[in-house]
Amino acid sequence: MLDALETPALLLDLDAMEANLEKMAAFFRGRTTALRPHYKNHKCVALARRQLAAGAIGVTCATLREAGVLADHGIPGILIANEIAGAVKIRQFLDLAQRADVTLAVDHPDVVRALAAHRSPVKLLVDVDVGLDRCGVASAGEALRLAREIIGAGLIFRGLMGYEGRIKSREACEAAMARLAGCRSLLEQNGIPVEIVSAGGSGSYKIAGQYPGITEIQAGSYVVMDTDYGAICPDFAPVLRLLATVISKTEGRRFVLDAGLKSLSGERGLPMLKDMPGARLRKLSAEHAIVDILDASAPVHVGDRIEIRVHYGDATINLHDRMYGVRRGCIEEVFAIEG
Amino acid sequence: MLDALETPALLLDLDAMEANLEKMAAFFRGRTTALRPHYKNHKCVALARRQLAAGAIGVTCATLREAGVLADHGIPGILIANEIAGAVKIRQFLDLAQRADVTLAVDHPDVVRALAAHRSPVKLLVDVDVGLDRCGVASAGEALRLAREIIGAGLIFRGLMGYEGRIKSREACEAAMARLAGCRSLLEQNGIPVEIVSAGGSGSYKIAGQYPGITEIQAGSYVVMDTDYGAICPDFAPVLRLLATVISKTEGRRFVLDAGLKSLSGERGLPMLKDMPGARLRKLSAEHAIVDILDASAPVHVGDRIEIRVHYGDATINLHDRMYGVRRGCIEEVFAIEG
Repeated sequence: MLDALETPALLLDLDAMEANLEKMAAFFRGRTTALRPHYKNHKCVALARRQLAAGAIGVTCATLREAGVLADHGIPGILIANEIAGAVKIRQFLDLAQRADVTLAVDHPDVVRALAAHRSPVKLLVDVDVGLDRCGVASAGEALRLAREIIGAGLIFRGLMGYEGRIKSREACEAAMARLAGCRSLLEQNGIPVEIVSAGGSGSYKIAGQYPGITEIQAGSYVVMDTDYGAICPDFAPVLRLLATVISKTEGRRFVLDAGLKSLSGERGLPMLKDMPGARLRKLSAEHAIVDILDASAPVHVGDRIEIRVHYGDATINLHDRMYGVRRGCIEEVFAIEG
Repeated sequence: MLDALETPALLLDLDAMEANLEKMAAFFRGRTTALRPHYKNHKCVALARRQLAAGAIGVTCATLREAGVLADHGIPGILIANEIAGAVKIRQFLDLAQRADVTLAVDHPDVVRALAAHRSPVKLLVDVDVGLDRCGVASAGEALRLAREIIGAGLIFRGLMGYEGRIKSREACEAAMARLAGCRSLLEQNGIPVEIVSAGGSGSYKIAGQYPGITEIQAGSYVVMDTDYGAICPDFAPVLRLLATVISKTEGRRFVLDAGLKSLSGERGLPMLKDMPGARLRKLSAEHAIVDILDASAPVHVGDRIEIRVHYGDATINLHDRMYGVRRGCIEEVFAIEG
């Protein structure tokens, strides 16, 4: 029962999670575009397995460490959709590639040369900056040069990836997909086969998943949707809540919960309380949430348990080592967060 | 050597840490006021032991879980300077009090009654709100009523605590201390002995530590000083840095580090790079720091290692499981973060 949980505790609404899982899976049924969902959001092997059972072709991740955990659990088709550099990680990646089916993103010839120096035919994708202004090569010409460098060095070139960030508009998303498709065309015109073109998040999966030339989608947040991303992802219901306890109360003015920045991210704005219109979270400090009482007639007592809707799931899950899967007020399953 | 570390890695500057440790210890030598430093900032038993060896009389902490870790390691004189509530934590605290020397803060009669129902003479402090507008009783009269409730219930009343938050001015700090001293006087006038009056942080230790009636100081951040608190704590040098690797670079414009919100808090503002005046951190995303190159003549290469000054140590340490103690570029000691 929820009453026995030590707070703060991260809850996962099983009905909402399963509805999101099925909605995404249904989109890909009968389609040539595939889903290789991102692991970085939930960092939970049990959820990755559910995504695979629902039809995903593998798992995308953000770090070498995440890829190592996935490999340890026998997850197939691992894509590290992010760059690595430096001798320590190059060596770690080469070791991982010996024991798992793993493909790495690259955007710089120095890294290709460092990988090639070890004479092991690792699998690579070229990362293309499609507008996020973060990692990735800046042009189709650069993508071609890097693909040639990979092939020339005896490594395996599998294709392209580009992450456009959270969707701003259909036009912006289509412009990002057009840049990827343009890179693909240039490579194919130059005789380089492109097996994979990976793109798209939980806000853009429909646009990206139907865009010509895109072969797979990286969307992952959908299965642990939060209220921040949820505001622009109407297809998916919020899944995460933090259970907290009222530890202090100043009559008619405020109460304090035992949940602060060490268990709940405020990096993208303050979360809201569930089912408490008469109270509003004012501030998160390290260990506390301070809640203003707007409607003093709402009964709140020291020791009461209150649920907070998780606003930024990615950085909140990262603060916990498990999520409690709940349905109708009961814990049905405990999800370890391995990542 | 630092070169062998997997990034992102949290570094602790040993020279700066030891200087801070000694500076704080020196203040308390020969004084009747004592230091019971907070554990919540560093969550590291090895650092707590150094503080005890330097003269601290015990360790203050923020959660029952931290107190449990301290008890497991045989740390004496544990003060939980925070409220708990609810059956789960009440039971956990009573179990802990059986096996460790632990004192708990309370601010509500319901919690006193819940504790008293178990007929175990636990040790309590009354928490007084001295201006932070968070936890704590609102007045000396309330403090007196709660102390009487504790004593009447057969529990052990040890005294008072009040945390004023980060120092705003000498006047604000003295006003907070005056409220605590006023509570103490009222209790003593009513025949209630007050053994402990705990207050003061790393920014206010000198004012609080010399204020009549204050018996001990909770300051803890000083030993792992960051650049945010450091700006108002001129006595202590910044201690924490995050080591990161350049994983992507767009010539002359920007580079990207493998350190984002999952390893470095941005909750109190963006951190700065160490020894790189020609570059400025623009944005932290979940896994990346995006750095603008201001001076294109500064050489930066993919694979380079760069140190970031930790701006908000409390929420950054919380993201790691160890800190690497470094001196002159070498790792001398690895500090486990147990909390």
